[in-house]
Amino acid sequence: MNDTVTSADERIAQLAALGAATVYEANGQRDALDPALKPLDPETRVAGRAVTVSLEPADNWFIHVALLEAGPGDLLVVDIKGYVDAGPWGDVLTLAAQQRGLAGLVIDGAVRDSRQIVEAGFPVFTRGVCIRKTSKIQPGKINVPVTVGGVVIHPGDILVGDADGLVRVLPDDIDSALASSRAREEKEEAMRRRILNGESTLDLLGLSDPRQ
Amino acid sequence: MNDTVTSADERIAQLAALGAATVYEANGQRDALDPALKPLDPETRVAGRAVTVSLEPADNWFIHVALLEAGPGDLLVVDIKGYVDAGPWGDVLTLAAQQRGLAGLVIDGAVRDSRQIVEAGFPVFTRGVCIRKTSKIQPGKINVPVTVGGVVIHPGDILVGDADGLVRVLPDDIDSALASSRAREEKEEAMRRRILNGESTLDLLGLSDPRQ
Amino acid sequence: MNDTVTSADERIAQLAALGAATVYEANGQRDALDPALKPLDPETRVAGRAVTVSLEPADNWFIHVALLEAGPGDLLVVDIKGYVDAGPWGDVLTLAAQQRGLAGLVIDGAVRDSRQIVEAGFPVFTRGVCIRKTSKIQPGKINVPVTVGGVVIHPGDILVGDADGLVRVLPDDIDSALASSRAREEKEEAMRRRILNGESTLDLLGLSDPRQ
Amino acid sequence: MNDTVTSADERIAQLAALGAATVYEANGQRDALDPALKPLDPETRVAGRAVTVSLEPADNWFIHVALLEAGPGDLLVVDIKGYVDAGPWGDVLTLAAQQRGLAGLVIDGAVRDSRQIVEAGFPVFTRGVCIRKTSKIQPGKINVPVTVGGVVIHPGDILVGDADGLVRVLPDDIDSALASSRAREEKEEAMRRRILNGESTLDLLGLSDPRQ
Amino acid sequence: MNDTVTSADERIAQLAALGAATVYEANGQRDALDPALKPLDPETRVAGRAVTVSLEPADNWFIHVALLEAGPGDLLVVDIKGYVDAGPWGDVLTLAAQQRGLAGLVIDGAVRDSRQIVEAGFPVFTRGVCIRKTSKIQPGKINVPVTVGGVVIHPGDILVGDADGLVRVLPDDIDSALASSRAREEKEEAMRRRILNGESTLDLLGLSDPRQ
Amino acid sequence: MNDTVTSADERIAQLAALGAATVYEANGQRDALDPALKPLDPETRVAGRAVTVSLEPADNWFIHVALLEAGPGDLLVVDIKGYVDAGPWGDVLTLAAQQRGLAGLVIDGAVRDSRQIVEAGFPVFTRGVCIRKTSKIQPGKINVPVTVGGVVIHPGDILVGDADGLVRVLPDDIDSALASSRAREEKEEAMRRRILNGESTLDLLGLSDPRQ
Repeated sequence: MNDTVTSADERIAQLAALGAATVYEANGQRDALDPALKPLDPETRVAGRAVTVSLEPADNWFIHVALLEAGPGDLLVVDIKGYVDAGPWGDVLTLAAQQRGLAGLVIDGAVRDSRQIVEAGFPVFTRGVCIRKTSKIQPGKINVPVTVGGVVIHPGDILVGDADGLVRVLPDDIDSALASSRAREEKEEAMRRRILNGESTLDLLGLSDPRQ
Repeated sequence: MNDTVTSADERIAQLAALGAATVYEANGQRDALDPALKPLDPETRVAGRAVTVSLEPADNWFIHVALLEAGPGDLLVVDIKGYVDAGPWGDVLTLAAQQRGLAGLVIDGAVRDSRQIVEAGFPVFTRGVCIRKTSKIQPGKINVPVTVGGVVIHPGDILVGDADGLVRVLPDDIDSALASSRAREEKEEAMRRRILNGESTLDLLGLSDPRQ
Repeated sequence: MNDTVTSADERIAQLAALGAATVYEANGQRDALDPALKPLDPETRVAGRAVTVSLEPADNWFIHVALLEAGPGDLLVVDIKGYVDAGPWGDVLTLAAQQRGLAGLVIDGAVRDSRQIVEAGFPVFTRGVCIRKTSKIQPGKINVPVTVGGVVIHPGDILVGDADGLVRVLPDDIDSALASSRAREEKEEAMRRRILNGESTLDLLGLSDPRQ
Repeated sequence: MNDTVTSADERIAQLAALGAATVYEANGQRDALDPALKPLDPETRVAGRAVTVSLEPADNWFIHVALLEAGPGDLLVVDIKGYVDAGPWGDVLTLAAQQRGLAGLVIDGAVRDSRQIVEAGFPVFTRGVCIRKTSKIQPGKINVPVTVGGVVIHPGDILVGDADGLVRVLPDDIDSALASSRAREEKEEAMRRRILNGESTLDLLGLSDPRQ
Repeated sequence: MNDTVTSADERIAQLAALGAATVYEANGQRDALDPALKPLDPETRVAGRAVTVSLEPADNWFIHVALLEAGPGDLLVVDIKGYVDAGPWGDVLTLAAQQRGLAGLVIDGAVRDSRQIVEAGFPVFTRGVCIRKTSKIQPGKINVPVTVGGVVIHPGDILVGDADGLVRVLPDDIDSALASSRAREEKEEAMRRRILNGESTLDLLGLSDPRQ
Repeated sequence: MNDTVTSADERIAQLAALGAATVYEANGQRDALDPALKPLDPETRVAGRAVTVSLEPADNWFIHVALLEAGPGDLLVVDIKGYVDAGPWGDVLTLAAQQRGLAGLVIDGAVRDSRQIVEAGFPVFTRGVCIRKTSKIQPGKINVPVTVGGVVIHPGDILVGDADGLVRVLPDDIDSALASSRAREEKEEAMRRRILNGESTLDLLGLSDPRQ
């Protein structure tokens, strides 16, 4: 059992290594999030299981609550209604998330303490950076479907992200996404070799040359 | 006297070290500037006294004039009406500002020569980068109240900025802002220790757990 | 003849070294592209001859075709109608472009595989990054005038770009642009020396001091 | 049976009369579309069953196809990827839609012939108006789930729209949405009477008065 | 005394009749609000004394409270942090405001029930229209200085608005603003007569003709 | 001669009557301006010869000058660099323009006195409405090529505009544009008749039906 859990984590880590662009292309070209959700650190590569939380704008009480529902390998996915004029996540929450082993944070809002988060090596995808305050009064909802970056995310969905953006993989599709992503990687590797041998991308892709 | 001046500079430098997010939170959660004003170099940390200048869009005559009113420890705060399709500040002005000992530039417009400015190590907060020309014909106003990033800045106001954004501190509030920022730092440091000991942020902040 | 060609390439390379801001200022203060077209890598410095392609949004068939019309020293200039919700250029096209010796890519749309492109050292100016798919079905037009970043670019036009943005130089203006850019550089170098000697920028630029 | 059909249409028409704001509030405060989708005519009031079509940006071949799948009482819901620099719908399609009895059009893109559409009295919700051309070459998908205005719309979903925006009602929820909307209308009518009698909205809503 | 009050109201009404553009120009060319705050009805012409309320985004409890602090001739000025993805004001609040004799609403957010508000003839300046829900839980602050449309508004400030936008007049400046606005009106009326007599605007404004 | 002039004016008026969408489609599907340039009055229909003026943002001296270069049938086309935070055109200039017989104004900036302009019946296409002040100090350039709405406009170019936007017609293309626009009108009229007879738009346009 522990074996299987490890194995699932490993497969998710492999999705991260393959990268968002490849997984998106290989897994049916669907469920790419709005690219306005960017990593604070462009070197970020992450994949994890979504623990979702739906909040009112500018209130972070339920981020603190949701954190307790998340653990190793989880990505906290925060629907805060696209509001970027407050920073409901900072270095203290980052430390708490790292202490719990979270894989990272995806927030359709903003964060503060951006440099400290980067230095701590904690993956954060966000629409912006803002120091403005949040309240701690509004009830939210944990592990409900949320719309983040234009895609409906259910708890347990897999998100794969890097500097190119984020893509959602359904839990049942991990194996097929992994297989097709690897196949695509190999295909692209073969294409690279043929390009180095002087072939054109028209030939590689079987596209017609309209100039002829 | 000179002693007191030095001391004021040191206290302002200490605000810079504490960072914009901490000073904002500790100093009454007010007067954060629009986060669209970002430092060219994300490693920037600066604090200084505002020397303000109000300009028409796309004209920089009075930037050259205002520079002569600014000296060591001053931040030139340029209200150029949010216009980002011209670059009224570049490497020559940067050198002149450094020669005069300025602490940095905050401009609600754009600049040019962005890489040279970063290499010169001169702190610049700006809405954008643009090479388009400016005229040198429009009279401006120096050391009048200006609205920059949505906050009214008076000459002599303190601005504290880093990758998280900028916050204004009133001159009379330097000491209290410093004290409360340090207190917040200590409180957060204590929170970090408790997090490392396994406590939840709900407990640390005295928030109720609605799941119970 | 070959000599002349090399010489032309060298002169274009010298424009790149002078930088977009200097060339823009020296060459008549015109034809700066929209600064929203930014290099993926802020250290980018490039200049090249435009090979243009006009596409429908979200289709990249004719990028593959246009690549075959471009060679050493050429910049592929892609008018894809400002559409940033698809990534019609990635690492495979980057390799093919490098294999053909292209100087770089300017696209008024988005790209994918942004980190790989930066690591490959291939200059790319783009409005954004997006992993979403493109089709390969829409015919485009190669080497026609295109509007990219608000400037009409003809095939053979020279573009000079860096972190400050892009500027167009007409082919007949290369020599004069080079001469005037060097003259400006020298003038600015002289200004820098005078600034270090304590002169004001008002004096350097012959601007009146309205405070007197 | 025909009776039931008529009745369903009537109930949908009643939702239109109640208005988007009331139906949204009464039906669980969910599934409001991005308010950037506005009616061309602010007097528009419409409700209908979604016939969906997913298109590439700037191509309208499959709008012509989808029209043949839509009939009386249907709203054509066009996912054209938010692209507003082309006008894939105009007066000819409007006439064809009216001839088929369609209830209206919802397009997350732009249209042309805006005045003629208003004069024809055909309800159209759109992000913008643009005369630029579309191609007629890209295959699309008809009656698949689409994301329009940030909400996933399935074929057969009910959309209710007016100058306040659009809200989605699930087909199974028509009756309950109608009942709760009417109840809300009555409640608001009672509130209006009490307001005219001098009561405060704090009292009407049972909100506490923090000034006391 | 009552006489004076009436007179103040009359003078404010006269500012409304003169219009925002004229009052702005005549009263020192300052304190124009962001023109993104537009009236729902372009025929709107209003002026009133500000009763201010500062709210968290997407919560309207304190709008209901603030309404009780406002009366005949007052404009409710709502700082809701620019949030436009919720509609904290609708037809019920409009009726309550009209019942209390309010002059209108200025909100740096959005409203719902836009057509009903226009039909009720109640002046509303807003950034947008949205049906999405608000909570009624967050405490706000009444009659504190607020920043709305980029201008700091104090309780009792006069706002003058129409389709051209809004301008703030300080309470002590009502008489001078009225006098200078009328003078400007007369001057413009004289200019109109001279234009009809064939004079150029260069001559009217004493501008030089650079073509000579 | 006078005869020919009248005839040219009539042909331009006929382009206005055909409308921007039709002329755009019929005249090569090119040179549509950015649809963000909208008429103040949606009922506007105008066509005219461009008299161009290139200005610095927020300065209108040369609008007054350019007006003297424009006469009956001319459209004043103002390149003010997209700046929308000042209103360099108002009711006095409108009267002066009407007195000179101008066909209208196209400005890639903002105007003030919007309601008065609409009431005066003067066609104005603009990016926005703003009461903020302009200076009258910056020299501009009259009858030079300008870029307005993303299209390079030369003096004498014809612009055709209505609620759908603006399209440029080259002076040499007036006759062909008129002929092809009328042909398109007739073709669309025939299509309307066939639609009323029950034919599908697929059939009318010769598009294949992929469902078969």
